Amino acid sequence: MIQDIRDIYQEVEKFMDQEITLQGWIRNHRKQKEFGFIDFNDGTYFKGVQIIYDNTLPDFEEIQKLRVGCALTVKGTLKKSPKENQAFELHLSSYQLEGDCPEDYPIQPKRHTREFLREQAYLRPRTNLFGAVFRIRSIAAMAIHEYFQKNHYVYVHTPLITTTDCEGSDQMFKITTLDFNHLPMVDGHVDLSKDLFGKQAYITGTGQLHGESFAMAYKKIYTFGPTFRTENSNTKTHANEFWMIEPEIAFCDLDGLMDIEEEMLKYVVSYVLEHAQEEIAFCDSFVEKGLKQKLEKLVASKFVRITHHEVVDILKKANIKWEFTPDDNEDIAKEHERYITEYFDGPVFITNWPKDIKAWYMKVNDDGKTVAAVDLEVPGAGELMGGSQREENYDKLQKRMKEMGIEEDVVDWYCNLRRFGGCYHSGFGMGFERLLIYLTGVENIRDVIPFPRTPGNCDY
Amino acid sequence: MIQDIRDIYQEVEKFMDQEITLQGWIRNHRKQKEFGFIDFNDGTYFKGVQIIYDNTLPDFEEIQKLRVGCALTVKGTLKKSPKENQAFELHLSSYQLEGDCPEDYPIQPKRHTREFLREQAYLRPRTNLFGAVFRIRSIAAMAIHEYFQKNHYVYVHTPLITTTDCEGSDQMFKITTLDFNHLPMVDGHVDLSKDLFGKQAYITGTGQLHGESFAMAYKKIYTFGPTFRTENSNTKTHANEFWMIEPEIAFCDLDGLMDIEEEMLKYVVSYVLEHAQEEIAFCDSFVEKGLKQKLEKLVASKFVRITHHEVVDILKKANIKWEFTPDDNEDIAKEHERYITEYFDGPVFITNWPKDIKAWYMKVNDDGKTVAAVDLEVPGAGELMGGSQREENYDKLQKRMKEMGIEEDVVDWYCNLRRFGGCYHSGFGMGFERLLIYLTGVENIRDVIPFPRTPGNCDY
Repeated sequence: MIQDIRDIYQEVEKFMDQEITLQGWIRNHRKQKEFGFIDFNDGTYFKGVQIIYDNTLPDFEEIQKLRVGCALTVKGTLKKSPKENQAFELHLSSYQLEGDCPEDYPIQPKRHTREFLREQAYLRPRTNLFGAVFRIRSIAAMAIHEYFQKNHYVYVHTPLITTTDCEGSDQMFKITTLDFNHLPMVDGHVDLSKDLFGKQAYITGTGQLHGESFAMAYKKIYTFGPTFRTENSNTKTHANEFWMIEPEIAFCDLDGLMDIEEEMLKYVVSYVLEHAQEEIAFCDSFVEKGLKQKLEKLVASKFVRITHHEVVDILKKANIKWEFTPDDNEDIAKEHERYITEYFDGPVFITNWPKDIKAWYMKVNDDGKTVAAVDLEVPGAGELMGGSQREENYDKLQKRMKEMGIEEDVVDWYCNLRRFGGCYHSGFGMGFERLLIYLTGVENIRDVIPFPRTPGNCDY
Repeated sequence: MIQDIRDIYQEVEKFMDQEITLQGWIRNHRKQKEFGFIDFNDGTYFKGVQIIYDNTLPDFEEIQKLRVGCALTVKGTLKKSPKENQAFELHLSSYQLEGDCPEDYPIQPKRHTREFLREQAYLRPRTNLFGAVFRIRSIAAMAIHEYFQKNHYVYVHTPLITTTDCEGSDQMFKITTLDFNHLPMVDGHVDLSKDLFGKQAYITGTGQLHGESFAMAYKKIYTFGPTFRTENSNTKTHANEFWMIEPEIAFCDLDGLMDIEEEMLKYVVSYVLEHAQEEIAFCDSFVEKGLKQKLEKLVASKFVRITHHEVVDILKKANIKWEFTPDDNEDIAKEHERYITEYFDGPVFITNWPKDIKAWYMKVNDDGKTVAAVDLEVPGAGELMGGSQREENYDKLQKRMKEMGIEEDVVDWYCNLRRFGGCYHSGFGMGFERLLIYLTGVENIRDVIPFPRTPGNCDY
């Protein structure tokens, strides 16, 4: 029987002094005259197994020729290791070469820059750093599903192809089956009635509107899927394709929403701390010193709740020369975010934002100036989630749409949700990559997405 | 405190004779002169609660005016019901109207056709049928994640935007940020270098190729995400957007793959039977008689494994006049699929298919005529999964690509996986909607997708 290396680590005693078979890849190979050491990893666990062999083996010389990157099946006996930092080692008895690897294999046992590894996107999960990052990605995704399913939310697959143009179509990719070089024309314009859907379709930037319609049936729903932006922006935090989580909850006000956001985030962080111990330890040592402590502190903290107005007051009273002057009618800048999370030494929910800088579907507060929106600011990560109570009043929503130039006909069904048994309800969005940047300490969004898409970059 | 109706059903005794508060919607309202009955549902559970009120309430007359679809907060006392088929009922003490609903509300307490409800996609999850279907969808999705995560597969978010054109670009949607009516031209052709990615990009039809690259790092991975086809086909089983699960496993041959497929499917079906009891019971009664028994039988069965050649033999020996003549070199038809699952009275893995009807990346068997592919045929559902051992030999893969006209430069990185420590490996794909059709008994793919996209149909 073939063992996963993960199983060996889980039950070392069971396998000790037994002959076992492993299948995996050579990460490193150090050869000496009469023996050699192979760092062997099968990807099922962060750590690998050290293989030891010596010249009593009949094929000693062939083994010494094995190169980094080779795929092998190995048989050997698991033995207690004489080394202090290593529980066991495998004494090789026989092996089979499953797949060779040439000298010019790009992933060598040395320090590669992240920029170089980005260009080797299809090979980089074989390195320690990306092996850790993408396993944390998988575990964090499961944590999110577990949190919502345990709390009986319905997972909704909202459509990616859409004609509902809610954030402005210039932010969405158009999709088509037409031949660009032979476009059907009518009256000097492209005849979109000839396209597969008979009209212009897009790939979506949000599942929120569709999510709300399901919240009006199930009370509690969440989405978790890919999302797209056409933003022509080359920063560390922007990508054209990323994953979002968008829960919507009927009969839920802004305070209820903050309760959910706080509980969910703590659940996810705790889950990752428990299920990705080796990976978090690695990131703590080599990516962000103090990462583990930062995450543990978040789980133990009580998130502060404060209004935008109160934040502006604190910023004004601070003895700091701001680049951007704090203002009740303006967004808060990165420098303000940083200050306010340091001021409270923990995560901060900022509520009741000026309505003119927020989206059209947010509920306008009684003051007529602010909306019932909430952003969660987290130390070292900035804005991690954004949510709001949604405008549940049909007439008020129509008024906001007119003020903000939203075309009614593409969202008429969405508005109708207010006519057909609408109720007060709230929802939020969390960019999954922003969470991962926080969880791993890796700063660049390109390094937490398996195959990142950014302007000018769509390889693989 | 506000209760979810689900909680009441889970712990009836705890709430019996207590005053409770619920929030939800009126599904039906039967009025009599001195009292009335409201079918009340909050979406957290398949079943609702029957509310009883009488004319001792001060606002009796207003209550009688409440229409189907209204959103309410209700207070009342939970009482044992005199009715046999109902464990409890709520004796109303007070209510608050959260959102009204007009007479022309499309979802009335009567039988609507599925065609009509398809046109009300944003309201149909409020009906019994779609309430059941989309909760089963959510639960089945969780079952899939649980199976793979428990077995330590890494969940990989393969990219949706891609330039890797592996199945033929005419089957993929093109995406663009260019303005169709002002396309930049160069030498009489559209200048795609001006597009956001600097070249033609698509939304993908598979995550398999990218998945394989991660399997070469983690041994066991799976994808679960949206997938797109441009097929201009209006059948009950085709949609232009659907969800796929695509696991890839290193050091896994075709037998190993079938073990995984069988174990996974049984896990998912068992999980749904356990976690969606009310929904399965409803579908069993109103959608497909015998559904529950069908699913239980699958879990208890041992899947048959048989080659394509053996299947053709059985078909030839059958005393049936086939519309399509069984042939060693041809695909098997729907009529054959049906016969063979009835013949074995259970699920059948059909292996070793003629190479000319299968994909270029499948491993050619030693006979030079067949590939190590496997389709799972399930009684009443046809083909539920398709998989294969992947060609791991670089030269053989190149040869197949030349024969089948696959352009090398777009998949060179994929081929390189064979050079850099490649190994024998396998994977399969399962269309999530096909599974849901099997799990619910609903025949049309448009009725298991929240907002289906088919040719000419992209509303909402």
